[in-house]
Amino acid sequence: MKKLINAVENVLSESLDGFAAAHADIVTLGDERKFVQRRSLKKGKVALVSGGGSGHEPLHAGFVGHGMLDAACPGQVFTSPTPDQMVAAAQAVDTGGGVLFIVKNYEGDVMNFAMGAEMAADMGVAKVATVITDDDVAVEKSTYSIGRRGVAGTMIVERLVGAAAEQGRDLAALESYGKDVNARTRSMGVALTSCTVPAAGKPTFTLGEDEMEMGVGIHGEPGRRRVKLAEADAIAAEMMGAILDDLAPKAGQQVLLLVNGFGGTPAMELYLMCNAARRILAGRKLLAARCLVGSYVTSLEMAGCSLTVSLVEDADLALWDQPVHTAALRWGM
Amino acid sequence: MKKLINAVENVLSESLDGFAAAHADIVTLGDERKFVQRRSLKKGKVALVSGGGSGHEPLHAGFVGHGMLDAACPGQVFTSPTPDQMVAAAQAVDTGGGVLFIVKNYEGDVMNFAMGAEMAADMGVAKVATVITDDDVAVEKSTYSIGRRGVAGTMIVERLVGAAAEQGRDLAALESYGKDVNARTRSMGVALTSCTVPAAGKPTFTLGEDEMEMGVGIHGEPGRRRVKLAEADAIAAEMMGAILDDLAPKAGQQVLLLVNGFGGTPAMELYLMCNAARRILAGRKLLAARCLVGSYVTSLEMAGCSLTVSLVEDADLALWDQPVHTAALRWGM
Repeated sequence: MKKLINAVENVLSESLDGFAAAHADIVTLGDERKFVQRRSLKKGKVALVSGGGSGHEPLHAGFVGHGMLDAACPGQVFTSPTPDQMVAAAQAVDTGGGVLFIVKNYEGDVMNFAMGAEMAADMGVAKVATVITDDDVAVEKSTYSIGRRGVAGTMIVERLVGAAAEQGRDLAALESYGKDVNARTRSMGVALTSCTVPAAGKPTFTLGEDEMEMGVGIHGEPGRRRVKLAEADAIAAEMMGAILDDLAPKAGQQVLLLVNGFGGTPAMELYLMCNAARRILAGRKLLAARCLVGSYVTSLEMAGCSLTVSLVEDADLALWDQPVHTAALRWGM
Repeated sequence: MKKLINAVENVLSESLDGFAAAHADIVTLGDERKFVQRRSLKKGKVALVSGGGSGHEPLHAGFVGHGMLDAACPGQVFTSPTPDQMVAAAQAVDTGGGVLFIVKNYEGDVMNFAMGAEMAADMGVAKVATVITDDDVAVEKSTYSIGRRGVAGTMIVERLVGAAAEQGRDLAALESYGKDVNARTRSMGVALTSCTVPAAGKPTFTLGEDEMEMGVGIHGEPGRRRVKLAEADAIAAEMMGAILDDLAPKAGQQVLLLVNGFGGTPAMELYLMCNAARRILAGRKLLAARCLVGSYVTSLEMAGCSLTVSLVEDADLALWDQPVHTAALRWGM
């Protein structure tokens, strides 16, 4: 295992310490490193809390800040955070408007966030609502999920709902909007290599020199099929085909396109995939109104990428363009 | 070779097309893709032009925009751009204030930018001055360089000089400031894996399962020595030791710290390295006034990172904090 780490058991804590120090203008670290929270909270605003296993950075801690999350609860690598983390985070960031949990659809996360919500309600900590993301069209059921997996589309939900929260919308409205954005968002990924979880010390899966995993999950879970490595255009065609067949947009529809690297993919390849995906959108008479390219929802050092399409209207784009100030996404301020 | 590409000969052009489309609000692509330029130019401002071999993205095209570069000339992967690219770029972005070339110290780049400057002057295109960056402390002479190599510190020069240019400083002042910033900036890198140039189709070098290249260059050039893989703290100690011994800062000095991933390194590891580097700075009573962590000056999908330290004063920090609006670095607007 080749990693820039010290003792395996300290990877998360040392990384969180580095993150909090590097972005001390934006975030602070909660007690016992249970959560990362926004340095300045806005009185009465609904607080957005997300989290999940680590190893997907910058998701979620990198999206804590103005216009996105109020707190993120990091679990160990590819392991759900525990309910006490969510309770502590909710307590720290609720300023009276209630708390919205944004949770990727994996059994462990869904269960632990639900327990956290229940505990927070029982303890009178905060009123909590939950949005579960399940944007991955690759498979209907997976290693860690009942139903579709929540993957890169989660950051689009976090961003749009985060912008709406800054405008003062209430908890019910944000819950409804989050579910709506999730329902209009689809993703699919491909892996060219595996990743290695530090505590495991060996690759999560193995791929032959000429193989790729089409429809891979963000923990290296199996996708639709293992196939021979193909050209970028063919890969983009299969992923965009699955996404667009599922979304079934009308010609002329505006979309937001996210080309997401899994951690080990050069920017050159991501922009090349962006070019391929945009040509497919144009061929279907769809307008890429906004395009985000980068490694935002990763699987440690896995090589590969995912494509995400969200159907958007002018009102969504207006929210997208509002100021955002997080470690990983920043504009307008 | 596992890459998200189509035909090898189209990697650069397809990637540039995707980049220009994704960031159409910031950049446009010059004729024959000779350069990427800022969409809106500022009359009379000194124009900053950089460039070099591709494969280091987001450097340089990702730094074109307000507060950094006016144009970037991309060569093929790890290959210098040609002088006609620099002439065309200078012609496109000069608005009367002259042009400053920022060039990493590699023989091909230095020669081609010098020829470009001469041609631009002869043709009456623009008055050109040049800053050469050579921040890599690892080796005094390398595969492609006479003297030290220009590596990740180049982006700090581009940023600080870019901010100063927005304030209206003249060409001579910016040339002088750029050389000054370069002289106060040192970097060193480590590679855990090689990268593969698409046209070569095989890894640039090979490393054993338990080996790393200490002091590696950003094209996979040899560094100081090939050694057994070590813990992050030991790696950080060697790199920071070399950097700080060379810079010899006084206690209490403010520094800018850049923890730069080479393309295949997870964010978790970069933040862990950031944490390690910051402890070393604190131990030497140096203040990390700003800290930037991410994959900014890459070597395709190479795993590893570099550390860069710039000695800075309040005036530099004030420039650093000015608005910047590029594909890869953005704040304040």
